[in-house]
Amino acid sequence: MENLERLAIHTMTTKPWDLPTAVKKYSQAGVGGLGLWRQWLEGRTLETSKALLDDHGIKAVSLVRGGFFPGLTPAERSASLDDNRRALDEAAAIGAPQLVLVCGARPDQSLSENRRQIMEGIAACIDHAASVGVKLSIEPLHPMYADCRSAVNTIGQCNDIIDQLGDAWVGIAADVYHIWWDPNLEQEIRRAGKRILGFHVCDWLTPTQDFLNDRGLMGEGCIDIRGIRQEVEAAGFCGWIEVEIFSSRHWDRDQDAFLSDIITAYKSHV
Amino acid sequence: MENLERLAIHTMTTKPWDLPTAVKKYSQAGVGGLGLWRQWLEGRTLETSKALLDDHGIKAVSLVRGGFFPGLTPAERSASLDDNRRALDEAAAIGAPQLVLVCGARPDQSLSENRRQIMEGIAACIDHAASVGVKLSIEPLHPMYADCRSAVNTIGQCNDIIDQLGDAWVGIAADVYHIWWDPNLEQEIRRAGKRILGFHVCDWLTPTQDFLNDRGLMGEGCIDIRGIRQEVEAAGFCGWIEVEIFSSRHWDRDQDAFLSDIITAYKSHV
Repeated sequence: MENLERLAIHTMTTKPWDLPTAVKKYSQAGVGGLGLWRQWLEGRTLETSKALLDDHGIKAVSLVRGGFFPGLTPAERSASLDDNRRALDEAAAIGAPQLVLVCGARPDQSLSENRRQIMEGIAACIDHAASVGVKLSIEPLHPMYADCRSAVNTIGQCNDIIDQLGDAWVGIAADVYHIWWDPNLEQEIRRAGKRILGFHVCDWLTPTQDFLNDRGLMGEGCIDIRGIRQEVEAAGFCGWIEVEIFSSRHWDRDQDAFLSDIITAYKSHV
Repeated sequence: MENLERLAIHTMTTKPWDLPTAVKKYSQAGVGGLGLWRQWLEGRTLETSKALLDDHGIKAVSLVRGGFFPGLTPAERSASLDDNRRALDEAAAIGAPQLVLVCGARPDQSLSENRRQIMEGIAACIDHAASVGVKLSIEPLHPMYADCRSAVNTIGQCNDIIDQLGDAWVGIAADVYHIWWDPNLEQEIRRAGKRILGFHVCDWLTPTQDFLNDRGLMGEGCIDIRGIRQEVEAAGFCGWIEVEIFSSRHWDRDQDAFLSDIITAYKSHV
């Protein structure tokens, strides 16, 4: 029986709850970590948000999300870099050690150009990351998002990027939803080693009804979550385990009951 | 300006047309090749179907589809092998040189077990393939189908399988829809070389509305079809180019107009 000391939940998972509600509910349930989506910071100062977390003994384990580097013009790409630097500042202000990067892609330019611009964009953020002490965690996204969400689609690609950029301020957020199918998964997790800074869990449903918002709670689908967890831990990961579920079906439910189910599923399937 | 001598169309692409209609329409349009889905063989003898093709000067370039090897019980897996042998017999009878394998997957058993059963299933079909002179073309499917359609998801995986089973009777059907996102695509196509027995084209739409039936006509989406074609041809492929589009949107249109658009798109984007 797993205790909850490494369990974190993304604010997006319990989307109907605002930040004050989420920190109160998580805290009451014994959940000490939170993956903080930037929308949940709106409407109050960063200091107030940080105080909210601290008052409930909740740690922001990641800020979600930076990235989206590709752009058709230098001005667009420059605006994206500015936004990533702001996100790094926000992460530092709320005490999150990492900014999760959904790297972006545009269907109206080539895959190789998207990938070139991503590399360039991450490289351009490293100095700022170092200056504020926040790591950049590249989250490879499932290949079904390669057209418009991220042209970084495997742990292997992250490793190739980090081989070039160094691992002082760049790492990997490994989400089972995006990587479970990969025939090279085990070897690339081993290759990644301590580069893995985040581990996200949910499940893959059969059939999946929607490209974005039909993820499963752990145990509802076919992903060998515990097996992948063993692999990332064997590679050296010992950080928070972040529950990140986008699900219209679960968002429509009573969120207290859903939170209780998340905790049960975490104990049984992660 | 490309001529049509290598253009083939899958019967599923113009789904509303039965086989007699499809062969007549394709022939009138100057299309000489057809990817034959097994459902289109129902309701008449194989000899009659073959005569239909011959009378219109149409070549069956592939029979679609075999595979679906995984099963929970030995009896299920054995039934699948029987069906694959029947499919090989059908391919031989209609003069198709290859049977396209959609290898299968079950969400209720592990990915590694699915992959083991696929390897075992393909291996078990090789003798029959040799005896009837029909090749087995493994079609890697997009990772979004790894749960229930195919646990073979990259050209690299196909290469690994063929390294073990030999390439006398086993090859690869490369469909741009399934492989376009792959960061290792170019190197794995080079590695595949003449193992590539089929090349399928369509396009990836943004946004894609449906997991199965929302493919685009070539040019409607973001895939660099011509670039991938150059790679497979540089690797030695010189066979038919098969248009395989599942699209509720296009099936709802007038199929004569759709066929005309297919030919225009083939000339412009393939």
